[in-house]
Amino acid sequence: MKKVVLLRHGESVWNNENRFTGWTDVDLSPKGIEEASLAGKTLKANGFVFQKAYTSYLKRAVKTLNGVLDTMDLDWIPVEKSWRLNEKHYGMLQGLNKTETAAKYGDEQVLVWRRSYDIAPEPLAASDPRSPRADIRYGELTDAEIPLTESLKETVERAVPYWEKVIVPSLEHYDQIIVTAHGNSLRGIIKFLKNISDADIISLNLPTAVPYVFEFDDRLNLVKDYFLGDPAEIEKKMNAVANQGKK
Amino acid sequence: MKKVVLLRHGESVWNNENRFTGWTDVDLSPKGIEEASLAGKTLKANGFVFQKAYTSYLKRAVKTLNGVLDTMDLDWIPVEKSWRLNEKHYGMLQGLNKTETAAKYGDEQVLVWRRSYDIAPEPLAASDPRSPRADIRYGELTDAEIPLTESLKETVERAVPYWEKVIVPSLEHYDQIIVTAHGNSLRGIIKFLKNISDADIISLNLPTAVPYVFEFDDRLNLVKDYFLGDPAEIEKKMNAVANQGKK
Repeated sequence: MKKVVLLRHGESVWNNENRFTGWTDVDLSPKGIEEASLAGKTLKANGFVFQKAYTSYLKRAVKTLNGVLDTMDLDWIPVEKSWRLNEKHYGMLQGLNKTETAAKYGDEQVLVWRRSYDIAPEPLAASDPRSPRADIRYGELTDAEIPLTESLKETVERAVPYWEKVIVPSLEHYDQIIVTAHGNSLRGIIKFLKNISDADIISLNLPTAVPYVFEFDDRLNLVKDYFLGDPAEIEKKMNAVANQGKK
Repeated sequence: MKKVVLLRHGESVWNNENRFTGWTDVDLSPKGIEEASLAGKTLKANGFVFQKAYTSYLKRAVKTLNGVLDTMDLDWIPVEKSWRLNEKHYGMLQGLNKTETAAKYGDEQVLVWRRSYDIAPEPLAASDPRSPRADIRYGELTDAEIPLTESLKETVERAVPYWEKVIVPSLEHYDQIIVTAHGNSLRGIIKFLKNISDADIISLNLPTAVPYVFEFDDRLNLVKDYFLGDPAEIEKKMNAVANQGKK
């Protein structure tokens, strides 16, 4: 039996301020740091011992992972980071307050930008100081690979190949893996694993820092998937995410 | 110009208790966490932007590195961990208080154990609960590779190949690298780089969490090496390390 745990990062300082984050490299809030530690405790109590970890290039995911591994006494395991696990790029919305954006454009337009499958927000200008093309961490990528905005579809299309070509092959060597990433890159992986439709994936609201376990048989067929934690608490967290960006 | 920074981990809870640590996986003390952050600030102020990092399997080194990278906004860079960068294994001394050991065996014997080049403390029994052969993190190594005690010579002999075969080749791709490790594994690398004699390396007392910069020309010849920080503060730290284990 192989197990992969998908974990959305803990609360960031911009989650807290209700701003569109995307590729902006904002830090965890103190609550987010606590959430990471709690996720580590839950995983340890459930007997998990990861042998390999994956995360994004964004510090809210890296630091959530560091907190989980430290709580589990697994600081030493190999960690691989990839831009392909980054959050969806929110284009020109990055940095804007969700409630203000909703007041200006209406709930519906904001919901389209946040939750439609194939419509991306307006792109950043390449010359915008927020452009990832000016960021050394993406220096090994071509301009064509570096998005200035993304639809969820585009996020899925760059996250799923990382799942298929990097993470899945590593299950040959490792029995337990953790992937600490973001709401939308994880949606991409979950959509692929559970064959969820374009329409339905939009309403999947992953709670922050709740371990989501996927169990595979030896042929790597998905056998079952479940969240670890108190169901009422998890539902509360899912609703909180769904209600972000409403006026 | 290529630059490699060697960094000894910050103070651990056992440095603080003056106990022999070796491969025991003890945590950083609050002071150690602060030291890591300060090292990061110093490196950032001196314009360093690392592209790759190496550390050991021990959390006091991993967490020092995490603290440095986070302070420098470099959480995203690739990190490689190896047991070859671990501290010297102190055999049966691991866990014992240095002052008590000195009172029992005399300063001289303790200095032999701590500082002779080729004499190792008595080994742990393979059945000792402290034995690294029972630790999953070394599960991919053969028993012959996993020490139950080490002389400094043996530490050097497993650390230097990692420098030569892993770190140096990566300088083809990266201009700035940080290696966060331990007093004795770093001694091994410094001995090799500066061609220091067996006798002289014993009296090199690396201060905790002070960046030690090595600059190389394009043919990877060592051009110069220097500590970053206040010279008086560095000397004070070096003396504190030298005086550990005296009655």
